[in-house]
Amino acid sequence: MVERGGDSLARVAALTWPLSGSAHLVGLTGAPGAGKSTLTNALCAQQRRRGHRVGVLAVDPTSPFSGGALLGDRVRMGDHALDDGVFIRSMATRGHLGGLAVATPAAARVLDAVGFDMVVVETVGVGQVEVEVAGATDTTVVVVNPGWGDAVQAAKAGLMEVADVFVINKADRPGAGETRRDLESMLTLAPGEGWRPPVIDAVATDGRGVAELLDALAEHRAWLVSSGEGERRRRRRLADELAAVVSAEVARRAEAHMAGPAWEAALARVVDGRTDPWTAAGELLGD
Amino acid sequence: MVERGGDSLARVAALTWPLSGSAHLVGLTGAPGAGKSTLTNALCAQQRRRGHRVGVLAVDPTSPFSGGALLGDRVRMGDHALDDGVFIRSMATRGHLGGLAVATPAAARVLDAVGFDMVVVETVGVGQVEVEVAGATDTTVVVVNPGWGDAVQAAKAGLMEVADVFVINKADRPGAGETRRDLESMLTLAPGEGWRPPVIDAVATDGRGVAELLDALAEHRAWLVSSGEGERRRRRRLADELAAVVSAEVARRAEAHMAGPAWEAALARVVDGRTDPWTAAGELLGD
Repeated sequence: MVERGGDSLARVAALTWPLSGSAHLVGLTGAPGAGKSTLTNALCAQQRRRGHRVGVLAVDPTSPFSGGALLGDRVRMGDHALDDGVFIRSMATRGHLGGLAVATPAAARVLDAVGFDMVVVETVGVGQVEVEVAGATDTTVVVVNPGWGDAVQAAKAGLMEVADVFVINKADRPGAGETRRDLESMLTLAPGEGWRPPVIDAVATDGRGVAELLDALAEHRAWLVSSGEGERRRRRRLADELAAVVSAEVARRAEAHMAGPAWEAALARVVDGRTDPWTAAGELLGD
Repeated sequence: MVERGGDSLARVAALTWPLSGSAHLVGLTGAPGAGKSTLTNALCAQQRRRGHRVGVLAVDPTSPFSGGALLGDRVRMGDHALDDGVFIRSMATRGHLGGLAVATPAAARVLDAVGFDMVVVETVGVGQVEVEVAGATDTTVVVVNPGWGDAVQAAKAGLMEVADVFVINKADRPGAGETRRDLESMLTLAPGEGWRPPVIDAVATDGRGVAELLDALAEHRAWLVSSGEGERRRRRRLADELAAVVSAEVARRAEAHMAGPAWEAALARVVDGRTDPWTAAGELLGD
């Protein structure tokens, strides 16, 4: 219902809104192949051992042409299929990038409302949208691999700004030490704001580093409360979400202008070269 | 003026619209590090030798936090700084992903109107937005490297659907033959539609394969004309552009709802938990 959007989403939102607010929202992002889903699965297993329930939203890029989620939920759920303390759901963009800014927090709120202690929002890729979606959480984990040194400076800078915790996954591979030194020197240059992102070595395939990651997440959450930063982030997140909801609603109303005889006539004028798209758009909107 | 958007963009659009329509629009996309900018530079040099003028729009992902273009125009222009037959411009998203769908075709139209024979729209990355931007051209070139075999199936499928020409850049590296076989077997499976994308081996750093690429671009352009596909693409592109312009204009009007006392009051109600974002959005929009 959340992914369907529109009225069904609004109904879910109204129901879950008063019941949410207790889960720890964790964003997890990193380049394709960094091992994010393996790390998330290991994190779920470790959380279960500690008696906590985990919900996972895997936000996937989709082919702009064929649609559909990149990761199979069934495959993802493999280790946890019989455990109702773990829920994993892939969310596709379905061609509407803006939709993620509306659907992701609403879906996280559903998992929060039904009692998951932690909700992990995992995004594939390190594009602007992916980083923004992962960053719209309480705590953002950035997963890198040995060889991070090759990443372009600007991409690094963007990730440094969102990361609350760094994980060097596949840390048993050559170059892990260099990657750690690179990260730590960049962190030293960053302006101090009371929280220095820890850098955790992990090998998600055998669970190494996962307990340390969970400890770091708990520490960060405690810092969010004690410093007041958690409340500041919540306010910013809600402002972003409200803006996204307003935009989505306005866009839905705009779609009324993109079909029907007036639209066809305007498009025909543009295709024939009689008018440019700006003039045509103004006419459609009644200027 | 195009990047600034709004009224200045509309003025540029009105001026350049009647003068455009003769350039060959070429999209060029591929993963970061595939060598797209080197290939584009080599393509410019080769086009100059043939007496043609080339405009390049390098559409860059930006850090969502610090802004600014990833590639330096000055660096990019290095080989062609004294040649007014080549123009290279980086376009940043400036935090507005939707803005690219409006600004890119408008900027390409400026270059077209002032007499560039070919306009290359180069996008960094293979996300949905990047592929869409590169695909909104006459001819789309997808640049891969030996090792393409590692790319996820869904990403491959999306690229196969937009590619008119494949370039295996860095073809002097191990695995080029395997990559070619992989591409060609995927192309064999694709439904035949009259044009079978050629697969060109290139080494952009020494110019190898660039003449073949230009020949393939010219052949594809001739096919677009003879098959009628060029006109179909132009119509689809203009419909997309008109929809993007309408959306941008509606979004601009929506921003009026995202500031001022009513916005602050609605946000305060959401932050205090008194109402959910959907109800608040509805109230802001006068429901």
